[in-house]
Amino acid sequence: MAGESVTLIGFWGSPFVLRVKWALELKGIQYQYVEEDLSNKSAMLLQYNPVYKKVPVLVHEGKPLAESLVILEYIDETWKQNPLLPQDPYEKAKARFWSGFVDEKNTCYRVLFVPLVTHSTFLILRVMATFSKGGEEQQKAAQEARENLKTLEGGIEGKRYFGGEKIGFADIAIGWLGYWVQIVEEIVGINLIDKELMAKLDAWFNDFLEHPVIRESMPPRDKLLNHNTAFHKVLTSSST
Amino acid sequence: MAGESVTLIGFWGSPFVLRVKWALELKGIQYQYVEEDLSNKSAMLLQYNPVYKKVPVLVHEGKPLAESLVILEYIDETWKQNPLLPQDPYEKAKARFWSGFVDEKNTCYRVLFVPLVTHSTFLILRVMATFSKGGEEQQKAAQEARENLKTLEGGIEGKRYFGGEKIGFADIAIGWLGYWVQIVEEIVGINLIDKELMAKLDAWFNDFLEHPVIRESMPPRDKLLNHNTAFHKVLTSSST
Repeated sequence: MAGESVTLIGFWGSPFVLRVKWALELKGIQYQYVEEDLSNKSAMLLQYNPVYKKVPVLVHEGKPLAESLVILEYIDETWKQNPLLPQDPYEKAKARFWSGFVDEKNTCYRVLFVPLVTHSTFLILRVMATFSKGGEEQQKAAQEARENLKTLEGGIEGKRYFGGEKIGFADIAIGWLGYWVQIVEEIVGINLIDKELMAKLDAWFNDFLEHPVIRESMPPRDKLLNHNTAFHKVLTSSST
Repeated sequence: MAGESVTLIGFWGSPFVLRVKWALELKGIQYQYVEEDLSNKSAMLLQYNPVYKKVPVLVHEGKPLAESLVILEYIDETWKQNPLLPQDPYEKAKARFWSGFVDEKNTCYRVLFVPLVTHSTFLILRVMATFSKGGEEQQKAAQEARENLKTLEGGIEGKRYFGGEKIGFADIAIGWLGYWVQIVEEIVGINLIDKELMAKLDAWFNDFLEHPVIRESMPPRDKLLNHNTAFHKVLTSSST
């Protein structure tokens, strides 16, 4: 609807904020974007997300919403065009299951590195954190990350996207991982996605990242690389 | 619908299994219940939930579903009677937010006590685990649990239930906590719910636990107390 007030409070380097951006843009919703300074949180963020004090926050007609997957559900229910979730309840459950799978793994690592990790948590973080330790511990973490990625591949089930022929809920929830994994592989110098053993996952990551809406809103690779390299230095210096 | 095949694989002492039981029973769905031996997991469980290998699993017409909140959404979409989620997208988002809040806190503690904690994870677990350490650390954990409970109270917003006048999605997702908190208070000998400072939360817990469907399917108090006392002993002996 024209004239609606939709504001997204975000941070450029957060994959959880990207989820919300992508959902809004795939649906053609006009919105205002407000960049948050996470080292000096705004009164607006604290007011609108007092429980977690984290981005993303979506404010629609003055009503705040937090938690990226909760926001995605809201967006899909409020603006019906280009649906993200399938109609069938069982297919819906699968989309939610795989979206939750990625967050489950995140949460684990988020806990392990709190309070350092407030905005940049991801599946492969343990690999980064164990980098300075090298050798066996790093190999073990990398192997665990690979197993998680292989498990995730099972959700594609021979389709083009998790959502079928079109990008859907789970794609938006998970797709950032392909971009981040490449960054981590480069920083740490270790291979996580085996293009032969995970051919379907690799093809899906590439397909997803080449979609015009996704590609255009992705943070610049160099900027993200620098940001995460700095972050990696903090992690490894504190873990030695 | 009569003649439908609905099977719940569960464990009597799991609050996440209770969520699914309550949803099925509030909607009047006939189902078969299969008790799982978590110390010797069945081929059925491993087949139907290969990713997490955990209960609850719901099998509807041969199709398996895992993750209690995903299952609740599925139940609510498949059997429309006695809806659990409100119609309004913003109210839905709030129900999902508070349900996720409880699981977020769980996940944190689940990580900290893996692999001990495979089926009995809850908000106040840290209090139990720190019991043997006593003193300052225990007080700190108890204070953190109280703050979480106070935050949770904010979701009731002056209504009778999270769901309004009727038990809804968030009530089912969170309500077990009232019963478990009492158990933990008794085992550890520490007060977590301040009946004056958290009068609304206390009233809601009591209202919820007195609902006939909830009360009848709750595990016997003594059995749960014994089970968690044994569990507490394992936790505290391994943490000294």
